[in-house]
Amino acid sequence: MRDLSEERLADAVIERMAGIEDDRARRVLSALVRHLHAFAREVELTEDEWKLGIQFLTKTGQISDGTRQEFILLSDVLGLSALVDAMNHRVPEGATLSTVLGPFFVEGAPELANGADLTVGVDTSMAPGEPTWVNGHVLTLDGRPIEGAIVDVWQTRPDALYDVQDDDDAMQMRARFRTDAEGRFYFRTFKPVSYPVPKDGPVGGLLSLIGGHGMRPAHIHAIATAEGYRQVVTHIFPAGDEYLDSDTVFAVKDSLVVDFLPVTSPEIAERLGMPSPFLQVDFDFRLVRNA
Amino acid sequence: MRDLSEERLADAVIERMAGIEDDRARRVLSALVRHLHAFAREVELTEDEWKLGIQFLTKTGQISDGTRQEFILLSDVLGLSALVDAMNHRVPEGATLSTVLGPFFVEGAPELANGADLTVGVDTSMAPGEPTWVNGHVLTLDGRPIEGAIVDVWQTRPDALYDVQDDDDAMQMRARFRTDAEGRFYFRTFKPVSYPVPKDGPVGGLLSLIGGHGMRPAHIHAIATAEGYRQVVTHIFPAGDEYLDSDTVFAVKDSLVVDFLPVTSPEIAERLGMPSPFLQVDFDFRLVRNA
Repeated sequence: MRDLSEERLADAVIERMAGIEDDRARRVLSALVRHLHAFAREVELTEDEWKLGIQFLTKTGQISDGTRQEFILLSDVLGLSALVDAMNHRVPEGATLSTVLGPFFVEGAPELANGADLTVGVDTSMAPGEPTWVNGHVLTLDGRPIEGAIVDVWQTRPDALYDVQDDDDAMQMRARFRTDAEGRFYFRTFKPVSYPVPKDGPVGGLLSLIGGHGMRPAHIHAIATAEGYRQVVTHIFPAGDEYLDSDTVFAVKDSLVVDFLPVTSPEIAERLGMPSPFLQVDFDFRLVRNA
Repeated sequence: MRDLSEERLADAVIERMAGIEDDRARRVLSALVRHLHAFAREVELTEDEWKLGIQFLTKTGQISDGTRQEFILLSDVLGLSALVDAMNHRVPEGATLSTVLGPFFVEGAPELANGADLTVGVDTSMAPGEPTWVNGHVLTLDGRPIEGAIVDVWQTRPDALYDVQDDDDAMQMRARFRTDAEGRFYFRTFKPVSYPVPKDGPVGGLLSLIGGHGMRPAHIHAIATAEGYRQVVTHIFPAGDEYLDSDTVFAVKDSLVVDFLPVTSPEIAERLGMPSPFLQVDFDFRLVRNA
């Protein structure tokens, strides 16, 4: 194995990988090598470009920490996250579609009672936020309620940031709710706002090069989990957002875009403990039974 | 741009990259996206595999620092470094072939006078090292000497480590030499020894999976630079090394494998200031004139 030609090199690496015992790992890594070499050969990658790539990847790792994951952001911006999501969550007609997890999920959000208020303690001095009542159900594919399902939600504050983008560890605007006997969950929040993905890291540099807006349409992240059913990781997008057709991470699906409708009745507001007027959104999850 | 199918996603990302003004950057990044998606689709990458990949890349960045570059090591082990080297250094018959830079190069090695001794101060308590006299020339393609060329060399100590693998900043076994009017450079060193690539990082984990020896055949790294000529980054491999045909980074070329021959004459040893016996290696660089 000496004097390997440009064409022979990938095969030589793949031949060495024949030693990998696990069939799946061998297949994935061999394909990775074949596609990586095919890319480099197709563009005749220069040494300067290779060095830029090494530096880019190194910085992407080094800026990541417990609450920031720049490699997930990179995967999102390259459409890889959307692709992996699509391939792994092919569901029957009628089931809630999944979309990307994104880099801001945090394990262990508090479980709150239905009706809880996610806006408590949120600083609204920069932007007031639009009070919103979220009302939803977790249902089977044929529309029967699933009791005891968990809906884990997280979203931007009115200042267009997630809590984890602060320096402190305080959780804000994230919680888990448990569905009642009717499969229902409900809570008070602010309408999520569109926001730029973080631009101060290597991926921000890539986005500057691409020259797009780097924005995500507003959304509430949600993970619905119920015993015996396939978990769904998704977004709830407010209709009318200007970035719905140019999402930086390619994650919008029409069936996830819903109206946040104004409710002007003071009586309804008073009954729910909401200010008047407020916005209401109804969103039902339909889960697929485990095989 | 909503509800993008698995097949359409790559195109959507590439369409967005149409906004990149620099033709070359647009071409390279578009090809990268196409090959990345083709890889993920071919193997139907699972979410767990995607997460493993994110974690692997993150750790690879985070273990890198000023003297350790785990992404270069990864590129080396995947044969990408050898490929980029080969594509960027196609040279005419007779020119010295290049090979990979590797992760242990350090800028600013001291310029020493010809005849200098790289073994001074090296701890030989664990392994004595074989005293070696390196004698070479930097020549044009047709064999005329190039005066004032710089030969930057670095190599393992007898303990099979590079200086940068220590905790301190002291340079050892690396120097730059300037060729004389005959194009000649010469110095005393130890015969380099074969060594394992660093295995305590993510790339070490990959190598364990592959199950190979993870060894590199012994070599002296060298960069020959002369005004008006194309720089060559290469290795000098001692013949007979057991890993020459299974180099972990796919970097061996037959023309770079040379004999380290014993010199038993005490007179020659005394004239060169060498112990007797010692090893001698002759290696000439033949450089290609700049276009």
